[in-house]
Amino acid sequence: MTAHPLLSRIESPSDLRQLSRTELKQLAVELRDFVLQTVSRTGGHLSSNLGTVELTIALHHVFQTPDDRLVWDVGHQTYPHKVLTGRRDRMGTLRQLDGLSGFPKRDESPYDAFGTAHSSTSISAALGMALGSQQKGEHRHCVAIIGDGAMTAGMAFEALNNGGMPHNGQVPNLLVVLNDNDMSISPPVGALNKHLARLMSGKFYTAAREGAKNVLRNAPPLFELARKLEEHAKGMVAPGTIFEEFGFNYVGPIDGHDLDALIPTLENLRDNKGAQFLHVVTKKGYGYKLAEADPVKYHAAAGRFDPAVGFVKPVTPPKQTFTQVFGSWLCDMAAADARLVAVTPAMREGSGMVEFHQRFPERYHDVGIAEQHAVTFAAGLACEGLRPVVAIYSTFLQRAYDQLIHDVALQNLPMVFALDRAGLVGADGATHAGAYDIAFVRCIPNMGVIAPANEAELRRALTTAFHRDHPVAVRYPRGSGAGVTPEATLDTLPWGQGEVVREATLAAGGSTPRVAILAFGTLLYPALDAAQRLDATVANMRFIKPLDTALLERLARSHDALVTVEEGCLMGGAGSAVMEALSAAGITLPVLTLGLPDHFIDHGDPAVLLSRCGLDAPGIEAAIVRRFGAPATLVTPPALAANH
Amino acid sequence: MTAHPLLSRIESPSDLRQLSRTELKQLAVELRDFVLQTVSRTGGHLSSNLGTVELTIALHHVFQTPDDRLVWDVGHQTYPHKVLTGRRDRMGTLRQLDGLSGFPKRDESPYDAFGTAHSSTSISAALGMALGSQQKGEHRHCVAIIGDGAMTAGMAFEALNNGGMPHNGQVPNLLVVLNDNDMSISPPVGALNKHLARLMSGKFYTAAREGAKNVLRNAPPLFELARKLEEHAKGMVAPGTIFEEFGFNYVGPIDGHDLDALIPTLENLRDNKGAQFLHVVTKKGYGYKLAEADPVKYHAAAGRFDPAVGFVKPVTPPKQTFTQVFGSWLCDMAAADARLVAVTPAMREGSGMVEFHQRFPERYHDVGIAEQHAVTFAAGLACEGLRPVVAIYSTFLQRAYDQLIHDVALQNLPMVFALDRAGLVGADGATHAGAYDIAFVRCIPNMGVIAPANEAELRRALTTAFHRDHPVAVRYPRGSGAGVTPEATLDTLPWGQGEVVREATLAAGGSTPRVAILAFGTLLYPALDAAQRLDATVANMRFIKPLDTALLERLARSHDALVTVEEGCLMGGAGSAVMEALSAAGITLPVLTLGLPDHFIDHGDPAVLLSRCGLDAPGIEAAIVRRFGAPATLVTPPALAANH
Repeated sequence: MTAHPLLSRIESPSDLRQLSRTELKQLAVELRDFVLQTVSRTGGHLSSNLGTVELTIALHHVFQTPDDRLVWDVGHQTYPHKVLTGRRDRMGTLRQLDGLSGFPKRDESPYDAFGTAHSSTSISAALGMALGSQQKGEHRHCVAIIGDGAMTAGMAFEALNNGGMPHNGQVPNLLVVLNDNDMSISPPVGALNKHLARLMSGKFYTAAREGAKNVLRNAPPLFELARKLEEHAKGMVAPGTIFEEFGFNYVGPIDGHDLDALIPTLENLRDNKGAQFLHVVTKKGYGYKLAEADPVKYHAAAGRFDPAVGFVKPVTPPKQTFTQVFGSWLCDMAAADARLVAVTPAMREGSGMVEFHQRFPERYHDVGIAEQHAVTFAAGLACEGLRPVVAIYSTFLQRAYDQLIHDVALQNLPMVFALDRAGLVGADGATHAGAYDIAFVRCIPNMGVIAPANEAELRRALTTAFHRDHPVAVRYPRGSGAGVTPEATLDTLPWGQGEVVREATLAAGGSTPRVAILAFGTLLYPALDAAQRLDATVANMRFIKPLDTALLERLARSHDALVTVEEGCLMGGAGSAVMEALSAAGITLPVLTLGLPDHFIDHGDPAVLLSRCGLDAPGIEAAIVRRFGAPATLVTPPALAANH
Repeated sequence: MTAHPLLSRIESPSDLRQLSRTELKQLAVELRDFVLQTVSRTGGHLSSNLGTVELTIALHHVFQTPDDRLVWDVGHQTYPHKVLTGRRDRMGTLRQLDGLSGFPKRDESPYDAFGTAHSSTSISAALGMALGSQQKGEHRHCVAIIGDGAMTAGMAFEALNNGGMPHNGQVPNLLVVLNDNDMSISPPVGALNKHLARLMSGKFYTAAREGAKNVLRNAPPLFELARKLEEHAKGMVAPGTIFEEFGFNYVGPIDGHDLDALIPTLENLRDNKGAQFLHVVTKKGYGYKLAEADPVKYHAAAGRFDPAVGFVKPVTPPKQTFTQVFGSWLCDMAAADARLVAVTPAMREGSGMVEFHQRFPERYHDVGIAEQHAVTFAAGLACEGLRPVVAIYSTFLQRAYDQLIHDVALQNLPMVFALDRAGLVGADGATHAGAYDIAFVRCIPNMGVIAPANEAELRRALTTAFHRDHPVAVRYPRGSGAGVTPEATLDTLPWGQGEVVREATLAAGGSTPRVAILAFGTLLYPALDAAQRLDATVANMRFIKPLDTALLERLARSHDALVTVEEGCLMGGAGSAVMEALSAAGITLPVLTLGLPDHFIDHGDPAVLLSRCGLDAPGIEAAIVRRFGAPATLVTPPALAANH
């Protein structure tokens, strides 16, 4: 790595506050290079971090962190922040097992005032901190830094709406920094705007304005007119009246890569009372030509790359992912059935919908980061007889939980929920894990829940769900699976039916218990491996709801014990569904449930994480042996079947 | 009931469309009287329905319902709509078992285009319908009618943000009617505004505007300036630029009780293309002096009243409700601990926080209808060392599910969630039932969940939760319970411990199985009654998470079978938690789980509904006998103990 003489001296933001403006600019150059070098070795979010270098420096320079609170919305833009707050030496461990998180995390540093990852939480949290500090008589500044994408989520509006109004007679001191980096919508940034921004945020302007308001306060209609004139005069030179409507003092837009604009403006805003709003324009990937040219491609780097050449296409195409299987199915199903419409909350790439968007633009609806709206909007489509497919990560469906219950399930509307990233997700960690969907979806009446075991079954599961006259969720994990190529046809699965994929040869009631493993989803394969060694029966259950109770009862009556396996939380999961069904059928036999434990699981390699949870083949085998004893002779381990 | 000559001829909106303007005004008088008479006999929402009489008439007059879609936000203002759409004769069954729902319901009528009850869903649903119809080549108008309160929820903003933008090159035809009935924030309604509104919504103005835009489109900076001038010129005479910013054609405010303003304005807007926004001002309780004077009091009538005299205070005070127990505790705990702050999403009265608000205004935060923000805002307060108590109905916590997981539990912040209305809620029906919270909260790591059995235990549970260093939900039902008066002290419960409240005298392993009933929450009492007759053991488990596994294992080892009882969904509920714990402990014995079934339960008397679910004493007894057989001699039923 090239030398970073100035950066290497920054152990904490207080060091940074000693630097001159010229040195700060040099620091920005070094920090940008350091981030690029780091991400090229660890993978992670690149474009957004290159875009926040100057903003991060300016914020830590102007505010007395960690006493002042910085809340970074989404938080994947906080690598520069991590580097400057004592974590420079650990940046090589980013997003790796037991390493630094890719997001702010309260456990990791006192400078991480609030853990983020899902979007649009920052204003709420910062407002809470501002009012909390005020109540305790502590004087500190609370700052939310939020992107223009995150601003579209309703939660951000709820917080703005609440933040700009008086609380106990006083509008709280809160600064919202809008980091506007969407080139398509950002306004031109020029000298005039910068000048106006600095002027407007200055003490002189604010004092004059406040003075005028006080004078006019006793003459309401005139005051109101003056307020409107001022508002619209400002509206004429700069956008942003929408934030003024919420009660914020809007300033901007200013160039977010210009420390000479950022620092004095932030200083002025810091010393203002009430709700302040700074509109900053940055460029994703700033300073790295390859990323500037294709910020989407460099949004998140899956792995290492050479900074000089950028990403290189892998020679052998990687295995087809579940996401790709979904994307292909979506196009084929749409071609076959005109009722299909697809809805995504700003996850076109992540959900595999690029081809669909190109081929069926009039049936594609990207509603922005707005999960609640996405689901109820889709419910409206369903009311008109269309068949909406809502593609949403398991973790983000949490945002639309009430809509799923109240607008979809209660009205029993036929809709498909394609829940990508179900289970552990690896580098993104606990915030993005799809650990709870089985528990929180299956308890809703009218819902179906399918967990296909492989790629081919995913395609069939989606077709099956599409043809049902009620809502169905199909959950599947990140990445690729067993590698079973889907058929080109649009066949269905028999509704609510699993299948036995391996029969134990042991007799029931013997000295070694005859065990049946009920696998839900892709963990069928490690379960099969374990079963080979233990001579256990294995069922691919497929359906979490409705459960295949006929199969379940047959297995329960022909075995001494059952084992359930799923990549989802144990509490309320598919294993619990099995026990509920047994209880309802009046069948009593030992059940061992294997799944995700009752704690949050941090980032790391997914295979290692699964192993730590005992959800790989050796873990499953060990758990069964621990509970039910080893078979008299362990079956010789077969070569892992290639057609798994 | 007085005669309603005109109204009695209206069997459907098509009849109404034949009436002259004069007749429509007479119809409004009759309809208002009919609604008042009806609600005085059935109970229900009064003020909001009196406020929407003219708007309802105008909408059905102007739009070709049911082909055109009306989506009523929240939906408790739809009594006039129900009367006019063929349900007049059934209005006497409103909110009663097997009667009309208090909300729109797709099952109930084709005129109920979308079921509502939770707020702020209407714009999303109507937009979905608009685009769905467009895709199918069907020409219909889709209208969302939303109150100013519901407009504060983020979901409404997500929908506005999406609704005003082009979809496939075209802004969809959608009309949003803002029914502004909050006197404190509504602007003055006068002749000028009405005139301007009609002028602005007229074809002439719209055509002129569109023409100018087309001319200017090739000169972007000039066009932009023109657009801004126009926008701010309108802003100067009427509020509403915020809706214009979202891309809607804003019209209003107009008087929502004046059919001469409503009808022509709606006709003009109906014939416009694109996203239309009509701001209507109405008065809650309009036309009924008592309700106009105190709209909060007449917001929802619990039962019958005499229209001439209004509500009369009951002579004997009713039993203390759980809500009141919470309200008293909140004040006492706040007096004892300065860290306590309380947060409510616009549910001050419903959650029992009026006294707290009066006594501790600086520690009271009503954030509006904004559950997502409420929870994360409270998390921000917790980060500063305060102890937030979030008072939220079980059903509304569904709105903040992701925030509960991602912002609260993941960061393990000490917070109390006071979940009122847990279980069935009676007249409000399925949309408001708190049926799922046990399942969806207990699967979240770090959470605690307590279900107190009575009023005294609720107070102790809240104190217990308050002193924990992690988030805890305390769930309790609507209304009153067994009537156990809470102590004045702030004592705690032993964490994670239940207690045996009745020991069976039967021996285990006999011909009659020795059964232990594990009760969670207020169903302890019917469980006890059943146990008396069956000679069963009864434990008041109190804690759903952490479960008292020591007690559970002791009971499991000393009984032949266990029965769990809870007022919550069976799928993933407390009964499942018991089976999970038994499985983890390697204990196998028969378990019967009793709780809410896997279907939505409509409105009706709560006691009757519980009985239908088999959750009263006879139902519990019958289920146990059905499963485990009757004891040799049924124990003689004791007189119901007074101290239950």
